[in-house]
Amino acid sequence: MRMSTLFLRTLREDPAEAEVASHKLLVRAGYVRRAAPGIYTWLPLGLKVLRRVEAVVREEMDAAGFQEVHFPALLPREPYEATNRWTEYGDGMFRLKDRKGADYLLAPTHEEMFTLLVKDLYSSYKDLPLAIYQIQTKYRDEARPRAGVLRGREFVMKDSYSFDVDDAGLELSYEKHREAYVRVFTRLGLDFVIVSAVSGAMGGSRSEEFLHPTAIGEDTFVRSPGGYAANVEAVTTPVPPALPHDDAPAAHVEDTPDTPTIETLVAAANASHPRPDRPWTAADTLKNVLVVLRHPDGTREPLAVGVPGDREVDLKRLEASLAPAELEAFGEADFAAHPALVKGYIGPGALGAESASGIRYLLDPRVVEGTRWITGADQPGKHVFDLVAGRDFTGDGFVEAAEVRAGDPAPDGSGPLELARGIEIGHIFALGRRYAEALDLKVLDENGKQVVVTMGSYGIGVTRALAAIAEGNHDDKGLVWPRGLAPADVHVVATGKDAEVFTTAERIASQLQADGVEVLLDDRPKVSPGVKFKDAELIGVPTILVVGKGLAEGVVELRDRRTGEARQVHLAEAVRAVTDAVRG
Amino acid sequence: MRMSTLFLRTLREDPAEAEVASHKLLVRAGYVRRAAPGIYTWLPLGLKVLRRVEAVVREEMDAAGFQEVHFPALLPREPYEATNRWTEYGDGMFRLKDRKGADYLLAPTHEEMFTLLVKDLYSSYKDLPLAIYQIQTKYRDEARPRAGVLRGREFVMKDSYSFDVDDAGLELSYEKHREAYVRVFTRLGLDFVIVSAVSGAMGGSRSEEFLHPTAIGEDTFVRSPGGYAANVEAVTTPVPPALPHDDAPAAHVEDTPDTPTIETLVAAANASHPRPDRPWTAADTLKNVLVVLRHPDGTREPLAVGVPGDREVDLKRLEASLAPAELEAFGEADFAAHPALVKGYIGPGALGAESASGIRYLLDPRVVEGTRWITGADQPGKHVFDLVAGRDFTGDGFVEAAEVRAGDPAPDGSGPLELARGIEIGHIFALGRRYAEALDLKVLDENGKQVVVTMGSYGIGVTRALAAIAEGNHDDKGLVWPRGLAPADVHVVATGKDAEVFTTAERIASQLQADGVEVLLDDRPKVSPGVKFKDAELIGVPTILVVGKGLAEGVVELRDRRTGEARQVHLAEAVRAVTDAVRG
Repeated sequence: MRMSTLFLRTLREDPAEAEVASHKLLVRAGYVRRAAPGIYTWLPLGLKVLRRVEAVVREEMDAAGFQEVHFPALLPREPYEATNRWTEYGDGMFRLKDRKGADYLLAPTHEEMFTLLVKDLYSSYKDLPLAIYQIQTKYRDEARPRAGVLRGREFVMKDSYSFDVDDAGLELSYEKHREAYVRVFTRLGLDFVIVSAVSGAMGGSRSEEFLHPTAIGEDTFVRSPGGYAANVEAVTTPVPPALPHDDAPAAHVEDTPDTPTIETLVAAANASHPRPDRPWTAADTLKNVLVVLRHPDGTREPLAVGVPGDREVDLKRLEASLAPAELEAFGEADFAAHPALVKGYIGPGALGAESASGIRYLLDPRVVEGTRWITGADQPGKHVFDLVAGRDFTGDGFVEAAEVRAGDPAPDGSGPLELARGIEIGHIFALGRRYAEALDLKVLDENGKQVVVTMGSYGIGVTRALAAIAEGNHDDKGLVWPRGLAPADVHVVATGKDAEVFTTAERIASQLQADGVEVLLDDRPKVSPGVKFKDAELIGVPTILVVGKGLAEGVVELRDRRTGEARQVHLAEAVRAVTDAVRG
Repeated sequence: MRMSTLFLRTLREDPAEAEVASHKLLVRAGYVRRAAPGIYTWLPLGLKVLRRVEAVVREEMDAAGFQEVHFPALLPREPYEATNRWTEYGDGMFRLKDRKGADYLLAPTHEEMFTLLVKDLYSSYKDLPLAIYQIQTKYRDEARPRAGVLRGREFVMKDSYSFDVDDAGLELSYEKHREAYVRVFTRLGLDFVIVSAVSGAMGGSRSEEFLHPTAIGEDTFVRSPGGYAANVEAVTTPVPPALPHDDAPAAHVEDTPDTPTIETLVAAANASHPRPDRPWTAADTLKNVLVVLRHPDGTREPLAVGVPGDREVDLKRLEASLAPAELEAFGEADFAAHPALVKGYIGPGALGAESASGIRYLLDPRVVEGTRWITGADQPGKHVFDLVAGRDFTGDGFVEAAEVRAGDPAPDGSGPLELARGIEIGHIFALGRRYAEALDLKVLDENGKQVVVTMGSYGIGVTRALAAIAEGNHDDKGLVWPRGLAPADVHVVATGKDAEVFTTAERIASQLQADGVEVLLDDRPKVSPGVKFKDAELIGVPTILVVGKGLAEGVVELRDRRTGEARQVHLAEAVRAVTDAVRG
């Protein structure tokens, strides 16, 4: 690779739409270019890194005994109809028709097709266990593609699927994948945390995510000192014991004018209706939040959620609890359709399937029997006090909707939770029999009986992992690739106008190539040393060899991109010095 | 790779829908499986061969100095709108909308995106010439997907694009690609003929196809002894000189009852209206054929084509002449809409833009001034004789529509043509400035003047080439891969029940793998030798090593899949014998 002819233009300015460092730098250093929202073109340098990341993933899959296949991206509707995912996937799936009007989709994942292929080929327990995988282009019509290739609409994914005759087999296959993933991310130099996750639209009994901790991550996860780790959407709230309430006073409606918010309500309660022992706090109030569920079939259902007033409703947790339905805002038209709701003063009296509004009402698990609440009285400027759960109101069920906060207890009693953010780089699912049942994948067991196969599915976001690596390996000057993933092993930079410099750089580059060292050679004749150094720092090859004015004294300079360390090397030693640096 | 765990099922029966050998065998031997019409899944063996074919293509592209990039398959409408291909591509392009209603397509080729990318990165003549390529998944909504991966709707293509500042540069880039293609197909062991072709929807000044000659090919091409070679759609008819017609009799209408076909017309003419010197033949009649053009914008236009009655209209040639319009049948409703047309007796009198029907009328180039014809008189049961072209009728122009026949003269005077069939495995286009103009790709030339860049585009059907290789490398027992493209270098088959056989086969396989020889090991414990041999022949690895009952005498058997030759080899020599066979 020669910079004089390489299809590359580095940019000094950050692209306007880029917010995170990896996105800015991958564009500025000429690795990727945006073709459409969430859809990127890989330029020569980017493609080299992508192939190297893919190679690590492929080697570990092969080493684990998984077999590579390759499915089409364009798939017919029918198998996805059989599992209901054609509908469940909602707006997130690209759908199209062919010239004959038949329905097709661009696959977001391939559970259905792998299931059908195994059904096509295999029929006996002797054929199992089986694990097959592909590294393939996937499509998801993300509502908010962001951060370059970190969350794209066309992206490369490694997806594996395991097939076992029984639960114990699935458990083993799941563990094998989990271990292979640990090896992949370790080799890629990506920090990771394995957290419990919700299975969501995928279904299944158990799932875990591999999260790369970083402040720019879109996923929030929790950890406890005792080792509990979960995606925040998978955190379950420990249910407190029911409280005795025989001595509780009857509920009483009080005037609380101009208190449409929790803050104003607490202030008014303390001012006009103080209790003797301690002041009212937001935790004493019950906040009722309205949303609309949009079900996969397109129907809209209003829903009320009651949570303690000191916590916000976490819409991602709520949505995960109610998957595959998606959330929409409860708008003015919805209020108009439900006159029983008094905005700012909505209480349990107007909520619930059996109520005047008929709106389903789900409660936070902390709202156990006997808890007392200040909450809306369904009249303007009025709240009800001492409203006792289980005595004065009940919901239509419970839901995990309240935000999780640092210090909350872990559900397994392992201590207080801390919160952090991460990028989902892998996700493993013990799917169980959902897909095999829907598509009738059975094999004969040892007793000659037909049994439904049990499956797992396992994904690594390959392009996302690349972005995460870039995110974790940069400084203010540019990218700093880990060795083995960089687009080249060494960046040889010839500086100055002396012809000798260029011929020497060429010769060193040839010798290195002959030794199996991949070289990026900056042989541009009329570019200043400053520009060349800036480009080398931006591109981020880990070792830089400068052939320049030192050549008159028979020395070249070896630079380490990560540490910034530079040392003079005798010309005769240059090739060996680079080879040593590259081979570590 | 072990047959005991390999994700593979060979089939003894041909798949119902398969017509050509490569399709049958690739399915039966477990290389591919159909996911939808024209859409295939690659199983482990197939994927290995595909990667090997890709590697040959990639190596030759890299060796020619072309740089690899990778574009998305899902693309926005706008660039294709700018070049008019969004419309021109008609039903052949998959189109879809995203969740926001924006128009997207699945790219059939990437001229627009490469043009925009170069525009984004480059601005000076100093940056050119440039040639960039990708090996990528393409989509075309073929009306008739057929023959497995030979003509698919999702397929792998290598597409390159060249960018030059002037015509001379384009000529060089075109030649470089042509040479690289010669090397690719030679290395793949694919016979090929380079023929002139029509540029069709792609546009441009010059194009050639690389055709692999085979009876199952969909393309017909011609060759002359003097070296002319062209796709039959690109053949131009030598225009004969005009004939004197001063002494021609006036045209006269004759009764020719019940002569709606050329055959009945010729018989009736000879019976009732004989000419003295020689009998009438079909070549004396002018056949007028009606079709409907469907233009890319959806409008339908009726069209009449007049050809000598001894030739059929070749609809593919006609369609190529009229691209991007597509042909439809002229139906009963169309006849009803044009009462001037008398079915079976249609003549020039009722045809032409200025005629009663108003239907555009295009003539075969042989219908020069002075030629005399028997043709329809536009009355039931009547034909007109001695109708002289240029005196009694003229068309609205000429068109290449008549079939080309063996023995026809080559347009360059290089002798009579012979016809053959082939598979299009490559196509190279000197595009010129069409795309650069539409998308405003300009660079500064040496004089600081903005000039429009001139481009070429060059494609290799990678999956199609694989099918062509399979088609040309099989016998009645199965596939016979060329060395270097097979899914493994050697197929080691352990036969019998003796444990010693299996451990020996394992040991040999390990030694071979250690020597860098890729082994497919048939270690299935309870499968008969007959089944194993049949599978080995079907799968088609070029070298087969049988470890079986000969082991008692210290020998194994080395078989050549292509020649069928087998010879005994001493056990101690087995590894070397295989290595020698593999390395040639």
